[in-house]
Amino acid sequence: MSILVVGSIALDTVETRRGKVTDSPGGSALYFSAAASFFVPVNIVGVVGEDFDFSEIAFLEKKKVDMSGLQVEKGETFRWGGRYHDDMNYRDTLFTYLNVFETFHPVIPPAYRKSEFVFLANIDPALQLEVLSHMASPTLTVLDTMNFWISGKREELDEVIRKVDILILNDEELRELTGSPNLTAASSTLLKDGLKGLVIKKGEHGALLITADDYFATPAFPVTEVVDPTGAGDTFAGGFVGYLASCKRLTKNSFRRAVAYGSAIASFNVESFSYNRLKEIEMEDIENRLLLFRQMTRF
Amino acid sequence: MSILVVGSIALDTVETRRGKVTDSPGGSALYFSAAASFFVPVNIVGVVGEDFDFSEIAFLEKKKVDMSGLQVEKGETFRWGGRYHDDMNYRDTLFTYLNVFETFHPVIPPAYRKSEFVFLANIDPALQLEVLSHMASPTLTVLDTMNFWISGKREELDEVIRKVDILILNDEELRELTGSPNLTAASSTLLKDGLKGLVIKKGEHGALLITADDYFATPAFPVTEVVDPTGAGDTFAGGFVGYLASCKRLTKNSFRRAVAYGSAIASFNVESFSYNRLKEIEMEDIENRLLLFRQMTRF
Repeated sequence: MSILVVGSIALDTVETRRGKVTDSPGGSALYFSAAASFFVPVNIVGVVGEDFDFSEIAFLEKKKVDMSGLQVEKGETFRWGGRYHDDMNYRDTLFTYLNVFETFHPVIPPAYRKSEFVFLANIDPALQLEVLSHMASPTLTVLDTMNFWISGKREELDEVIRKVDILILNDEELRELTGSPNLTAASSTLLKDGLKGLVIKKGEHGALLITADDYFATPAFPVTEVVDPTGAGDTFAGGFVGYLASCKRLTKNSFRRAVAYGSAIASFNVESFSYNRLKEIEMEDIENRLLLFRQMTRF
Repeated sequence: MSILVVGSIALDTVETRRGKVTDSPGGSALYFSAAASFFVPVNIVGVVGEDFDFSEIAFLEKKKVDMSGLQVEKGETFRWGGRYHDDMNYRDTLFTYLNVFETFHPVIPPAYRKSEFVFLANIDPALQLEVLSHMASPTLTVLDTMNFWISGKREELDEVIRKVDILILNDEELRELTGSPNLTAASSTLLKDGLKGLVIKKGEHGALLITADDYFATPAFPVTEVVDPTGAGDTFAGGFVGYLASCKRLTKNSFRRAVAYGSAIASFNVESFSYNRLKEIEMEDIENRLLLFRQMTRF
């Protein structure tokens, strides 16, 4: 099975107490692809500027990430700069230059329209809706979003939520979206409205998977030294959707395992800047971390 | 095996969005005893005023909580009043009248000095040290504390920490105590200094148990409707120490199960005001919730 991801491609300048990188590959679509391509081929749709150096992402091509859906537009690539606080839980955005991303309009190549799995990374919900309308009949559609769209484009966002199967978001976003402080109650509201499942990311506290007939909780892997938290959410989503796309059948346990794979890959990703750590690890390392997750929760 | 608990006994006035109670039994020692007495007899040391109505805690006597160590002093019982925010994660203290608790000096009856398990609930670390000095040779000593003592009586607190086996605290307290934002790194510091184990309570995010050779994570039970969070930490500690005191041998798995029992009992406790919910449930209910904890984390 193959996956279509539509999202941002950025050159990130990131400072943490462990160091600094300048113009390193980032953005939701690249992070997602770096993780999901451990499992299945990924088709990526996004935009870069003429300044983008494709040799920087050669690693992804080797991993069966199809780049033919990447648009190269006149102008510069989206750039983001941020500095993390010492506790790594908070960050200040130093600059955001949308550049070519400001007028991004996703064009889905015909060959991509039959992708069985679709991940709508965090972009304008109006564009997410457009992407969905082009897809043939995906097996599973997964949506990410953020507070900016929850408060700014609520109507369009609600419409995408009604059309997708799974929503991935963090605990604060879920509270904002539903107005309910209790995560379980908040999830019930969304499940009643037709969503098949929710994955709630809680950073250092792990993740929850809530569906009409299942409740699964996984802790975060105890990373002693977080180097750069950027991309944790997108690599989580990559592991989650990637694993599901590799399953022959989607059972209750597939979804649970998918959350564990997402958590494992995200825990590797924060061990270095950009998605560099994902270049070093093999599937075996991920499987080993999954075993540790199992051991951590057994009693 | 029996347990000695030394802590506060209070009459609480609590308001949450689910209602209000006035002068209902509370305080760390009572909450702890209500939970621990599911497993073994508990010896309680604390102080009440002449106004205290013992019929209010008759339930605890039925559950083999020995009250002969309760001092009745001239004056009124410690009273606390608080109001929880709608999200139940924050509360405002409306009043604190220490009354007889202000001059509380724990007197350990000779029969209590041989208790094999000791829980030092959150009181002045100078008093906690005194209690320890009276004990014969306990199998396991467990300490609770709070930010008030971390900032206000650091030297005495450090001394108690050096003398006990297990420290139970919440994530914010651990960060304050060690100055480290990373919980795993923070725990390593304390374990190097001689502590045998740490239990980190994270409220709705569950709990962690960290020792030199083990790392165990449990999620919180998803309580849809929290009625009153007061006493969650102390009933957690009661389940934790209570279960351990009921074990023939203390193995790595005993400690893991103890955390699960603590989490299960705390999750019942928040379902009503005071420790009223613990009056309704049986050991079988607790065991059932333990099964749910296992199912929630399996993949």
